[in-house]
Amino acid sequence: MSTSLDHTHDPHARSWVAAANDDSCEFPLQNLPLCVFRPAPDAAMRPGIGIGDQVLDLGQAAALGLFEALPERVAHVLTCPRLNELFALGREAMATLRHSAWTLLEAGYARQSEVPLQPLAKVQFGLPCDVGDYTDFFSSLNHAMNTFRLFRPGQVFLPNFKHLPIAYHGRASSIVVSGTPVPRPIGQTRPTPEVSPELGPSRKVDFEVELGFYVGAGNALGRRIALDDAEAHLVGVSILNDWSARDFQAWESQPLGPFSSKNFSSSVSPWVVTLDALAPFRAPLAPRSSDDPAPLGYLHSTANESSGAFDIRIETLLQTETMRMRGEPPVCISRAAFARDAWWTPAQMVTHHTVNGCNLRPGDLLGSGTISGPEEGTQGSILELTFGGSRPIQLPGGESRAFVEDGDEVTLVAWCERPGYRRIGLGSCAGRIQPTSEN
Amino acid sequence: MSTSLDHTHDPHARSWVAAANDDSCEFPLQNLPLCVFRPAPDAAMRPGIGIGDQVLDLGQAAALGLFEALPERVAHVLTCPRLNELFALGREAMATLRHSAWTLLEAGYARQSEVPLQPLAKVQFGLPCDVGDYTDFFSSLNHAMNTFRLFRPGQVFLPNFKHLPIAYHGRASSIVVSGTPVPRPIGQTRPTPEVSPELGPSRKVDFEVELGFYVGAGNALGRRIALDDAEAHLVGVSILNDWSARDFQAWESQPLGPFSSKNFSSSVSPWVVTLDALAPFRAPLAPRSSDDPAPLGYLHSTANESSGAFDIRIETLLQTETMRMRGEPPVCISRAAFARDAWWTPAQMVTHHTVNGCNLRPGDLLGSGTISGPEEGTQGSILELTFGGSRPIQLPGGESRAFVEDGDEVTLVAWCERPGYRRIGLGSCAGRIQPTSEN
Repeated sequence: MSTSLDHTHDPHARSWVAAANDDSCEFPLQNLPLCVFRPAPDAAMRPGIGIGDQVLDLGQAAALGLFEALPERVAHVLTCPRLNELFALGREAMATLRHSAWTLLEAGYARQSEVPLQPLAKVQFGLPCDVGDYTDFFSSLNHAMNTFRLFRPGQVFLPNFKHLPIAYHGRASSIVVSGTPVPRPIGQTRPTPEVSPELGPSRKVDFEVELGFYVGAGNALGRRIALDDAEAHLVGVSILNDWSARDFQAWESQPLGPFSSKNFSSSVSPWVVTLDALAPFRAPLAPRSSDDPAPLGYLHSTANESSGAFDIRIETLLQTETMRMRGEPPVCISRAAFARDAWWTPAQMVTHHTVNGCNLRPGDLLGSGTISGPEEGTQGSILELTFGGSRPIQLPGGESRAFVEDGDEVTLVAWCERPGYRRIGLGSCAGRIQPTSEN
Repeated sequence: MSTSLDHTHDPHARSWVAAANDDSCEFPLQNLPLCVFRPAPDAAMRPGIGIGDQVLDLGQAAALGLFEALPERVAHVLTCPRLNELFALGREAMATLRHSAWTLLEAGYARQSEVPLQPLAKVQFGLPCDVGDYTDFFSSLNHAMNTFRLFRPGQVFLPNFKHLPIAYHGRASSIVVSGTPVPRPIGQTRPTPEVSPELGPSRKVDFEVELGFYVGAGNALGRRIALDDAEAHLVGVSILNDWSARDFQAWESQPLGPFSSKNFSSSVSPWVVTLDALAPFRAPLAPRSSDDPAPLGYLHSTANESSGAFDIRIETLLQTETMRMRGEPPVCISRAAFARDAWWTPAQMVTHHTVNGCNLRPGDLLGSGTISGPEEGTQGSILELTFGGSRPIQLPGGESRAFVEDGDEVTLVAWCERPGYRRIGLGSCAGRIQPTSEN
């Protein structure tokens, strides 16, 4: 938990990029999120940093000699078409880059006209990195309880949930960047035991509101990462939508967990907000009741429980095709919050993941699992919001939704705010469901 | 199912590499398995082909101009330190390489002294390729029934097993090549609901006898692979040991499947036996009873059911530390067979995996799942062989084993044989359990 506040968190600091100083701007000087982008369709992908309504071209800035204080090994990886090599250098190297970028973008910088910026509105984003392995955790107690009630009514709740961060391996190949269309998947379903299974387009497409934490330097196979060191192995966070086909999931998941119901697409936001930028927004986990078990020693430290999470708000916006045609804006259907609704911290996830010697590699993605709050309208999936589809969401224009329909665009937006600090945004993660393709 | 027989399957063909002609040799001219190796510890990894007691250095052979008929795009990828680029070229390009290597190694070849060979006994093997995603199927009915009885006694058997190839995503980062030591993992267990969970070294380390099929060209996200095209997307097979910690598995697996119990290590043999080499060993799946459901249309074709599997025998050898010290040879504790004991073919696995649009990439690994036969001594895990540890295996020297102990070396060996054809070997996949490391 070594993240500490420094001058880059000063709420009064301003950038010479005017848009960055608007109160509503997601990317003020205090944020400096990383991305991979290209300025034109025929240009190569490259690392960037968001500032106001612009993207700083990091490789070009390095080539121009603008990063005077940046070690050569850091400057070198800024020419890669992905962030894995930067992540591999670890938190300290990335903090150096953060400070160098700050210097360039702070009000009063002398060589402003030389700084290579590209307008955000015109660039194309790529995936931030090649994800070697994608692990999805199950860290929200509310989500676990809600889905358990729907999938296994009447059974005793999972005895393991409060003892270990439950997780499964997801699919790395089908991770796509925000904006990539998501075709409705085909798969097997068997609605009731009385009928034969059949193959067809999913009738229960869902979203899952998650955060995705990227791994930095990682660990060698066979080496564990202690809880106090764990956060140093995480470099930043994106918004993650782990699309799901609930009808496939119900039929296929025993005994080995979800597969076809998840691996058709998972969307991530293009921005990686660094843990350094998140330093002002540390938060305790939700308080435990006296009945709740204390975590086992390897998952417990006072620092972890008191400030090991982050206060990140996430809203889910839905815009149907009809709404789009009518020019109606997206409507918010869920408001979740990470720290409030998580049972486990990112550090605990890292430590549990590696306790058996499993190796994490630079760019690996750790999903938080669906983030659901306790109140109505705070659940992070439509399955939960509609009680398994039985109470459809009523939209302002008269439509309703039990699950996600063709043409629906789901956009997750996330941000951090706290009195005395600049609000910073995580950007957005959008995907539109397309009709099943004919192949 | 387009694999066909040609002159490379002629059982009378001989190599000028003398050892290849021994009846007991795993790597006769008819095999030509691929690998990645280095001739010395300080040399670079490179692609090779096994022949007799030698490895052909493919990149060097190409550089020397020995592959006259090989297209430039195939020769080019032989300089890569892994096989992904070769796999990406697909089955047809790999058949061309097979024929070119055959020409070089067949008896009577004119330029024998120029052919770059390295003695098998002296080379170091690497992983055949970078595995982007590792999927583990659950294709043996006997294994499914055996483990179900042990983990969920008294419950009704999985209704989905005979309708779809059940699978889950495994961990790609911790796949290691045969010979890599496997430290006993630490993890959480809770033997009975009456006691608190605890952290410690697994007391129930197990092996899993599997085959691993590598993906060739693969498919784009959103594109399905039809059953008749599916096998063209598989390039070859290795032996796979999916090490498991059964005590962790029992505690963690609900509701999302195995995680820490599997991702500490999975071992693969260094050799990739091509599907072209396997052509003589095609086999039907075990016959169904009239009560068994027919597969849904996308998983059904007459060709698939009649010859979509491969007859591959696999033996599990165990040598304890005491046996090693006494100079006693390993003892065979399990004899399994792939076609006989599989409910689903590799082609069905590919088709089901992609039916929802999930993309497979070159080098992805599809595990068969543990291969268990119906009779005693044919089960592919110690959990099954010992009925959950309750009936330990008695070893000839007086020791017994309920699970795998520190110092035990487990070696899987596999081969194909059929009257009228040369026997070909898949090599071996070995791993020794080390005491838990102190980190």
